[in-house]
Amino acid sequence: MSRPQAQEQAVDSEGDSSLYRRDEEGTQSSHRMLGFSDALLSIIATVMILPVTHTEISPEQQFDKSIQKLLATRIAVYLMTFLIVTVAWAAHTRLFQVVGKIDDTLALLNLACMMTITLLPYTFSLMVTFPDVPLGIFLFCMCVIAIGSVQSYVLMVTVIFLPHISKATAWCKDKLMGHRESPALNVEPFSIDLHAPLSKERVEAFSDGVYAIVATLLILDICEDNVPDPKDVQEKFSGSLVTALGAYGPQFLAYFGSFATVGLLWFAHHSLFLHVRKATQTMGLFNILSLAFVGGLPLAYQQTSAFARQPRDELERVRVSCAIIFLASIFQFAIWTAALLHQTETLQPAVQFGGQEHAFMFAKLALYPCASLLAFAATCLLSRFSTAIFHLMQIAVPFAFLLLRLLVRLALAGLHVLWELRLEHPQPGQGEPEAQSQLLPAPC
Amino acid sequence: MSRPQAQEQAVDSEGDSSLYRRDEEGTQSSHRMLGFSDALLSIIATVMILPVTHTEISPEQQFDKSIQKLLATRIAVYLMTFLIVTVAWAAHTRLFQVVGKIDDTLALLNLACMMTITLLPYTFSLMVTFPDVPLGIFLFCMCVIAIGSVQSYVLMVTVIFLPHISKATAWCKDKLMGHRESPALNVEPFSIDLHAPLSKERVEAFSDGVYAIVATLLILDICEDNVPDPKDVQEKFSGSLVTALGAYGPQFLAYFGSFATVGLLWFAHHSLFLHVRKATQTMGLFNILSLAFVGGLPLAYQQTSAFARQPRDELERVRVSCAIIFLASIFQFAIWTAALLHQTETLQPAVQFGGQEHAFMFAKLALYPCASLLAFAATCLLSRFSTAIFHLMQIAVPFAFLLLRLLVRLALAGLHVLWELRLEHPQPGQGEPEAQSQLLPAPC
Repeated sequence: MSRPQAQEQAVDSEGDSSLYRRDEEGTQSSHRMLGFSDALLSIIATVMILPVTHTEISPEQQFDKSIQKLLATRIAVYLMTFLIVTVAWAAHTRLFQVVGKIDDTLALLNLACMMTITLLPYTFSLMVTFPDVPLGIFLFCMCVIAIGSVQSYVLMVTVIFLPHISKATAWCKDKLMGHRESPALNVEPFSIDLHAPLSKERVEAFSDGVYAIVATLLILDICEDNVPDPKDVQEKFSGSLVTALGAYGPQFLAYFGSFATVGLLWFAHHSLFLHVRKATQTMGLFNILSLAFVGGLPLAYQQTSAFARQPRDELERVRVSCAIIFLASIFQFAIWTAALLHQTETLQPAVQFGGQEHAFMFAKLALYPCASLLAFAATCLLSRFSTAIFHLMQIAVPFAFLLLRLLVRLALAGLHVLWELRLEHPQPGQGEPEAQSQLLPAPC
Repeated sequence: MSRPQAQEQAVDSEGDSSLYRRDEEGTQSSHRMLGFSDALLSIIATVMILPVTHTEISPEQQFDKSIQKLLATRIAVYLMTFLIVTVAWAAHTRLFQVVGKIDDTLALLNLACMMTITLLPYTFSLMVTFPDVPLGIFLFCMCVIAIGSVQSYVLMVTVIFLPHISKATAWCKDKLMGHRESPALNVEPFSIDLHAPLSKERVEAFSDGVYAIVATLLILDICEDNVPDPKDVQEKFSGSLVTALGAYGPQFLAYFGSFATVGLLWFAHHSLFLHVRKATQTMGLFNILSLAFVGGLPLAYQQTSAFARQPRDELERVRVSCAIIFLASIFQFAIWTAALLHQTETLQPAVQFGGQEHAFMFAKLALYPCASLLAFAATCLLSRFSTAIFHLMQIAVPFAFLLLRLLVRLALAGLHVLWELRLEHPQPGQGEPEAQSQLLPAPC
């Protein structure tokens, strides 16, 4: 059973049985607070993509130097913020792998810490906008120091000193009030293992937050920009709403394509982590890199829907989009490879040493890298149809997923029938059927 | 133990013991998929506040009729979207209270359902922008029908027919292949109880999502609007970044105030649901109403930071903000009241019949309604200082929280000392000490 569940269960049973002790200590399961922190941190990490996508390029300008510089700055801010916030998240995760239970003070301190973390993107972009002014750097460092000190305060006070203090208080009480029966507090020496694997639940929760916010940034763009103005409809489209909506067709296509991409990347991540038991440091790093590029997907969407309005620079934009999708998916692939390298430690016992199961996961994870590489190559050959190729790729991949499932189901059914036939007419020297049944692949 | 944990545990133990069965059925715990859906739905529900806050009111215009109409429309769109998405979420929750485990097909269908739900805000705002055109209404209805049919498809196929179908298939196989030992599938009749309480975990996850996205919308506004432009700093502030940042002072004050408000409302909600075991329909309704107003908090922030730039209409804006905070917190209070009405059913056994515990929760939950009412009343008397009063209220409440905690701790310590003294010198006719110890309040 996983850690947070075990905790909550402990609280539940405690709550049922020993009412008074719970009231006096005032501790509670940290499960929900951690979920809230994960949601907040994943959104803060991802939300800095918005200044990038909102960089307005008016139809008159070419993709000139100043715009390029602005875009490059903002992309750098996004990537750095993502990495910094993720490091803060990793520290938070490690901290609460040690701190088992929380009380109200810790919950409030955690909120203060979150508020300081929300200031990281701001101070960082201040630092980048004014590289010559020391104030920007000073503010940013103050912010990082504040986060670090809150977290280490929690660690020091709660984990290292609190057991000693409460032991001392209990001792004093005993002396003052006379000896009464008091629960024996055993102070255990403890250590934080910086190379310990991150909690799988929190890696999943953080990733879910990133995928969810990315999927939703897309719908936000759709809702804000693509509801036609009643006046425009009257003037340009002679009052016909259908024609007006038809003009937005490419944007909707781009939206569906992007949502499908985010959704299926989440699905691949979900399938991957179903098989994973523990996430090592390498896997955590690859996961963060993958998520950073997933966070860049709104940029890909923005690019594809922008060239629906202005067809120049189309080729570059399609290529950028392909590159983002490729990088996001190839790092997912890398997580699986890293997991396979230490499979006894990282994978569920059920999928270890399963040849077909692994091949299958490889196929699932290789779909997006291959598709985006193919699309990239196709744009080099057929540069005139690059948009069409990209949309085709985004919409074809979900069907490729379904086709893959179907093919595997058919192959599996065929294998089953063959196996049943062999069982009915057993041949000599075939090996035990038990071992064979374990080699059959799962139905995707 | 709560439901999803019980499921996951079941999967874990299954995965360890019976490899083959898990592979053949291909089912998995629905825990993570539900978490992802909760995150997506809560963000979709809340994100429509952005068009409201982004309604630009240029300094020249007064708060005239056309702007008022536009704002009213957008607020109506936000509230309706919130309610519609929440209804879709409630249906989703009920559905997956019946569907215990999922397979890959269900996960993909769920993604398709989510994509349809993301279109709800768009079609709804289309419908409102073009009230005379039937196409808007048609698209909206199509969207609702699509969501309903995907959900009922899942229900019908997975829950009602699948057991029968798999029983029939197993029977056919037995006939074709000859009798082998097959696991007995017992088909149980089942019913969906529409008045059954919603799963507490999912209510918490959905609420967490709303609080997290609201807190993050605030930092987004800060990052996008409040990084000074290098040119402006050179021209207006003669190159001094400190002066330039000083000009943004009121916005930062508004940001800290708003974050503290969202954070403490989350904290109150967290404390409240620590004591709750099951959420009834009435509690769910109050929770949704409370969350809808929490989603309106970025509006309050926008209003307070906007009048930092243009001091007209200040009074109305402060009053709107107070009203939003009051409504968000009073509905939280209503959740607790509704929980108390059926306390044997809804509360944890540990807090039932606990007089002080209840009074304490009341105090926590009454803090924001009282503070916002006070601020509202104060703006009526001292209309010139309304902004100052509002900021003071937002920043004073966290300290009031801390003060409340401190007072209660002191009172508790006093009671303890008194009780210890009485124990040492017991008086006749005092009642058993066990019962008294249960009446002592928790340390906040």
